[in-house]
Parts: sequence; structure tokens; C-alpha cells
Amino acid sequence: MNFFDALFDAKIVAVIGASNKKGKVGTTVFNNLLRSGVNVIPVNINTKWIGVHKSYEKITDYQGVIDLAIICIPAQFVPRTVEECGHKGIHSVIIISSGFAEVGNKELNDELERVCKTNNVEVLGPNCLGVINCKNKLNASFFKKVPKYDTTAFISQSGALGTAVLDKALLKNEGFSKFISVGNMLNTQFHEIIEYLNQDPETEVICMYVESLKKGRDFIRVVKHTKKPLIILKAGRSESGAKAASSHTGSLAGSSKVYDGIFKQFNILSVNTLDELFSLAKMIKTAKKPESKNVCIVTNAGGPGVLASDACENFGLTIAALPENLKAKLNEKLPSNWSHNNPIDVIGDAMSDRYIEVFKNVSNKDFYSILLCILTPQDMTEPEQTANAIIHFEKENKDKSVFTCFMGGERLIEAKKILEQNNIINFEEPYDFARIVSKL
Amino acid sequence: MNFFDALFDAKIVAVIGASNKKGKVGTTVFNNLLRSGVNVIPVNINTKWIGVHKSYEKITDYQGVIDLAIICIPAQFVPRTVEECGHKGIHSVIIISSGFAEVGNKELNDELERVCKTNNVEVLGPNCLGVINCKNKLNASFFKKVPKYDTTAFISQSGALGTAVLDKALLKNEGFSKFISVGNMLNTQFHEIIEYLNQDPETEVICMYVESLKKGRDFIRVVKHTKKPLIILKAGRSESGAKAASSHTGSLAGSSKVYDGIFKQFNILSVNTLDELFSLAKMIKTAKKPESKNVCIVTNAGGPGVLASDACENFGLTIAALPENLKAKLNEKLPSNWSHNNPIDVIGDAMSDRYIEVFKNVSNKDFYSILLCILTPQDMTEPEQTANAIIHFEKENKDKSVFTCFMGGERLIEAKKILEQNNIINFEEPYDFARIVSKL
Repeated sequence: MNFFDALFDAKIVAVIGASNKKGKVGTTVFNNLLRSGVNVIPVNINTKWIGVHKSYEKITDYQGVIDLAIICIPAQFVPRTVEECGHKGIHSVIIISSGFAEVGNKELNDELERVCKTNNVEVLGPNCLGVINCKNKLNASFFKKVPKYDTTAFISQSGALGTAVLDKALLKNEGFSKFISVGNMLNTQFHEIIEYLNQDPETEVICMYVESLKKGRDFIRVVKHTKKPLIILKAGRSESGAKAASSHTGSLAGSSKVYDGIFKQFNILSVNTLDELFSLAKMIKTAKKPESKNVCIVTNAGGPGVLASDACENFGLTIAALPENLKAKLNEKLPSNWSHNNPIDVIGDAMSDRYIEVFKNVSNKDFYSILLCILTPQDMTEPEQTANAIIHFEKENKDKSVFTCFMGGERLIEAKKILEQNNIINFEEPYDFARIVSKL
Repeated sequence: MNFFDALFDAKIVAVIGASNKKGKVGTTVFNNLLRSGVNVIPVNINTKWIGVHKSYEKITDYQGVIDLAIICIPAQFVPRTVEECGHKGIHSVIIISSGFAEVGNKELNDELERVCKTNNVEVLGPNCLGVINCKNKLNASFFKKVPKYDTTAFISQSGALGTAVLDKALLKNEGFSKFISVGNMLNTQFHEIIEYLNQDPETEVICMYVESLKKGRDFIRVVKHTKKPLIILKAGRSESGAKAASSHTGSLAGSSKVYDGIFKQFNILSVNTLDELFSLAKMIKTAKKPESKNVCIVTNAGGPGVLASDACENFGLTIAALPENLKAKLNEKLPSNWSHNNPIDVIGDAMSDRYIEVFKNVSNKDFYSILLCILTPQDMTEPEQTANAIIHFEKENKDKSVFTCFMGGERLIEAKKILEQNNIINFEEPYDFARIVSKL
């Protein structure tokens, strides 16, 4: 079993430092794996039994084959244990233990690196949370629950941030394909994980929280050929942030300009917040990538139309000019006080038929690639019918990227559900639409 | 009864254009007022009864005193009706009808202006949604429900945007003191409303959606002396936005630079989104205004600490250097691998006692004014106890502005409730904290 297959598909897993004591990392990891349904081998120098499971003093005491070892014992004992893993023929190891480079313990770090090399052991970590495969429910981490499966992979250089993201995903019922906490990246680096995920049929989009890349050249070599979208939240961009990152992972955050150059050259999407990271991932999977920056806006509300125009211009999208013959046609169909311009303001008293009229007339026109439909709940507004009309329009106009901004609350709950079920992305405000869509 | 008292405290209200027909604005307004518990006088040229209520052909046919008239009849009949209001001694009128300046009908607009002046009638609108007083539940608008009472007033130059905001407030159980849709601002301008709200005991903060100010000098004269915080979402900032605004309300959006200059000079807070508008309003009411830009961050998560540092620097806040004697004290109390720096990383395995230790040591120190406490849910983390410790710290440090960023989902639900009940504002991400707090 190669390294990544072991991480995500191991059938027999040793937990070195498995424990009976509540609150111990080794206890959590052991229990998580039991719940995953794999064969778990507890190893603990002081204990004969972990619950009803026979425990081994050393990994070498166990006679069978082991796919993956997870180490959660004090740092000073880790190198010797890795050596034993090597002797036992285990070449895939997750080291959860901390106390290496991140606390400035260079000596122990170097020793660990040497031991891994000599014994041909590949390591994720140390100082990491572990990995979760949300598809087969293999939880090789010390986070207690497995989010549902979805096609977004998330790689995090911060374990705590990983925990926050997983916990939020549980609450919001959002999912991942694989979650990987990389820790100190002693030998497994970002680029190797990206290479693996690029050929992983369960992953469509790769999201990353990055403080620093250690092997820039390898990273570039890999991302050059990566076909799946890559979205990165790069921390340590500012002077204070870089200082904080250095005391966090002990690594240099590097110049923001260099990173931005790389991101731009290789079409890596760069974001500022976790919300942006996962909104963008969702958008990439559900919406078409726009063919141009030209936006056509249809709205029943003047104010939000103005805000949308501001936001588009602010984020580099273009409010496309309406062709004269289209204006002439809309003049025939819309009330005389329509905006006569883009945004196409169908006026507050519009029912769904007026939206439908506009959709008919902008169908298969090439003056725009992105359609934004804004709706506010006036008395006569028909949110559900309008949502259905948008879905119909989207089906008939497969070359257009279609988004909505249904602004309101109570009266839009049903319509928003309809949009979501049909993979139309709705933004709360025009500003969010422009901010996110412009990233594509 | 003066004009604003009539708008918000009328006891006897005439609805000119009251109707029996479902979906008509005059029907909604009439029913809203009935539900408000005021005495409603329907006026309709074609109908003798509106439900069980005797209707009058003309306003002058009614014999009693009327505090406020709301007009929702076709535009061309509005000037004559305003004249009749004047004759009848009604000097406070809301004109909901549209079809004036906003559709380029300058002639009708001028006539209406003249009639108002001649007859000494003050008008809100035309082309507006009306007003809602959330305290006494007087709904003089065509929005069907009244949000709960809170101390934020909202003035909107876009009726549809107003509807969106009200509908969302209902869903999120958020409230307002007064909602005012200004429409075309034929004679009642922003500055007059601000002047009124400034002395309104039910309003603490004034939020506005503005496309254009008509009377800049008057506006400046008033805001110079306004003691209550003013937050403005100014639309039409970009070229495309200004163009859209001009076709929306027929008014010039004006130069962004001029607006920014005014906003800055008079401490008006300027925002980009509705979310920012109301988040900031909430913050102003609940959090202390920071005395300096110096931030002290306490976190159990390195990554979010880095993100917070980036965000602070990005938005002009300062990560304060830790005094040497404080570092020495923290060295005694925290594990050796704490960050030795600001952000104060108490390390992922921190329970609430470690946070409490830091709070004790930064209490009554003057190297910072803003405390940001970050928490991610690790296995041993104690979110509720930590929340309580923050509340205690805040009570003991009344000169500090205290915020939290509890990042996660399921495991933080209770802690977030505790924070909210004690008026500590929690941000989902450090970026949001810096973006909003820097506005103060």
C-alpha cells in the first residue's frame, strides 16, 4: 500500500500511544478508528488492554501486517518509535505528537528526519491533527466526528483552524472529500498531497490554508499540471502576520508578492477568509466559469441594482451595454418607466411574467456571459415562480453563468430552497456576488 | 401635531386610495393601519365602503380632525388631492404613489411641489414605501409586518431595498426604532429626518441607504451637531453605479470623493454592504468605542492568530508589542511553547484556566485598548467557561473594547449564546473583526 492509500484507505491501523484515559489524544484517535470500522491495533508501553482490546508494548510485538501507524506519544520517544515502524515494515506514519520544529527543537527534528530517511518511512506531520476520508468514513485524526462526503478536499497547515472548519461543517451540514492536517511538513509537503488529490476521483476542488510553502519549486512543478481548481487562503501576508506565522509553525511566510505571482501564473485562486474559500469552492463546482467579465443584471429593485453596479465595477466586472435592438424590444414589453439600461430594472411591481419577458429577450444574446437576477420581496413579487423561471433560463442558456441575489428573509425561504436544489448560487448581497464571481 | 409626530404617532390617519381589492397598495396600507390600532379613515372616489368601514369620496367630506394622510392613487390625481388635504387642514402627508421625477415627469413633479408649498403641506415621498414606528407598532407603509423594536433607525432611499431589509429583520428577529422610506424627497430631506431622530429617545444609531443628497449644505449643518452615530451605505459610488442611480431615482449620485470627505469630516461611518451597516450599528450600541488602535489577541489556535494579525494590519489596526514584564509573567504561567508574542497563543490544549491566566495578566494594562479572544474547539477546550471568563474580564476592564472570534460550529453554540446574552460581539472570522472594528 503506498503512502496516500495508507492514509485514506488503511484497513489495519496501529495507534502508538493508544490510551484508556479520557481527554488523551491517544484515546480519541483510538476510538475514532474503532468507529471507522477498521482493524485497530493499540500500542502502549504501560497498558495491557485498551478497553477490550489487547494492547502491545511495542509495535514490533504485533505479528500481522499493518498499513498505517499513528503516533501520539511524547516527542522524545517518537524517533525511536518511527525506527521500530521501519523495522516492522510500516512505511506510512502519521505523527500527531508535537514538540519538534514548531517549538524550536531543531535537534529532535533533525533526528526524526534522519530516522525517517534511513528507515524509508513516509510521515504526515508531526504536530498535526491527522486525516479524515469522508467518503469511506476513515477517521485517522483526533477530531471526533466525520463530516458528510462532498467533493471539496481541504488541506490545512493549522490544526486548530482545521478543527474550527470541521466543527462548522458539522453544524452547517457541509462536506469534504478528504481533510488533511499537514502539521510541520517534515517530509510530506503540499505538492505531494496536491498530486495525489489531482488523481483522486472523489475530489473536484482543492482548498488549502497555507502559512508557508517549503519546497517552492516542487509546488510549482505540480500545480503547473494540476487540472483541478486550487483555492488558497494564504496567511502571514502582512508583517505582523508573518511574525505570528513564524512563531506558530516556525516557518517563514515569504513575500506576499512572490506568492501572488505564483498564484496568478498558475490560476490558483487566492482568498482572504474561510467563507470565501468554501463559497468559491462551492461556486466552482456548481456554476459555469464565465466566458467574459460582462454582466447583465435583471432586478425588481433600483437600489440593489445600483449597489450591484458599484460592486461589479469595484471588483473588475463589466456592466455590459444593452444592444439597441434589445432595448427596443424591452420597450415594447416592459412598463415605460423601466430603466432603459443595464441593470434592467423591471420595476418593483413586477410579477414573474416580467422577469420571464426579460429572460426571453436576453436568451442566446452574446453581449454578456454572466446573468445576475436580483429580487426583493414586494407585495406582488413571485419569488418561487421567478426562481423557477431562472432555472429554466439557465437550462436553455448553458453558455451563461447564472447567479441570483434574492434579498430578504421570511418571504424568500422557499425560493432560495428551489434555487439551491437546482444548483443556482444565491448571494445575500450584490457585493458578495461581485467579490466571489470576480475571483473566477 | 408637527410633521414627524404625525408620521410616527398619528392617531387618526386617512388613506386616500384605500381599496378593497387584493394586491392593491391602498388595500395593504389600509389594513396595516387597522392592525396598528389607529383610527383609519378610508377615502376612495369609487367606493362607499372599505370592508365595514365607511369610505369618503373626498377627504374634505370627512368632518373630524386628521393627523396624517397617506396617498396611494395614480400620480396625475395627487396634486389636486394634496390641495384638498391643505384645505382640510392636513399638513402632514405621505405620498406612496409613483410617477413623478423618477420617471422623468418633471411637469407633474413641479406642480406637486408648488401645491405643497401653497397649501403648507409637508410631504414624505412621493414614490416611497412609507414609515414604520416599531415602538408603538404604527405601520404607515405598504410593508405588511412590523419588526420588533430596537434602537436602530433605518432611512432608505430605495423602497425595494427597504423591503428586503425589513423582511430579513423578521427572519432574523432583529429590530428597528423607526423605518423611513424617503422616496423622491420632494420636500422632506435626509437632514430633516436626521434632526428629528437625533432627539428621538427611542433611537440610538441612525443607519441610512443613500444614493444622493439633495441639499448638501443643510445635511452638513445638521450632521455637524448630530450626537448619535450615523452609518451610511452610499450607493452610486462607481461610474456604472452612478449611471444606474440616475436612472433609478433621477438624481445625481455625486462624486465619491466629495462624499468621503464629508463622511470623514463629520465622523459618519461609511460601509459597503447591508451586513456591514447593521453589524456596525449593533457594535456601536453594544461595544465600547476603542480608545486606540492597539489590539491584544489571545488565542488557542496559531493559524487564526496569523489571520488576525494579517487582518489587523490590513485594516489599520496595530498588533501591540507585549511589555517585557508581561512576557516574563506569562513565561511563568504558560507552557514553554506559548508564542512569546502578541498574538498570545496559549496553545491548542489550553483549557479555560490558561485563558484566565492571560486575562489576569493583561488586566488594567495600557499597551492595548482592544482585546480579541480567539477560540477553536479542540478536544479539551472549554468554550462556555472561556466565554464566562471573557465576560468577567470585560466587567473588570471597562476601558477595554472586548471582542471574540469563536471559530467553529456545533461545539460553540452554547458559548456563543452566553457571549451574545452578555453583549460581547462574536465574529465568525478574524477578518470580519478587523473589517468592522477598524470602522470605529
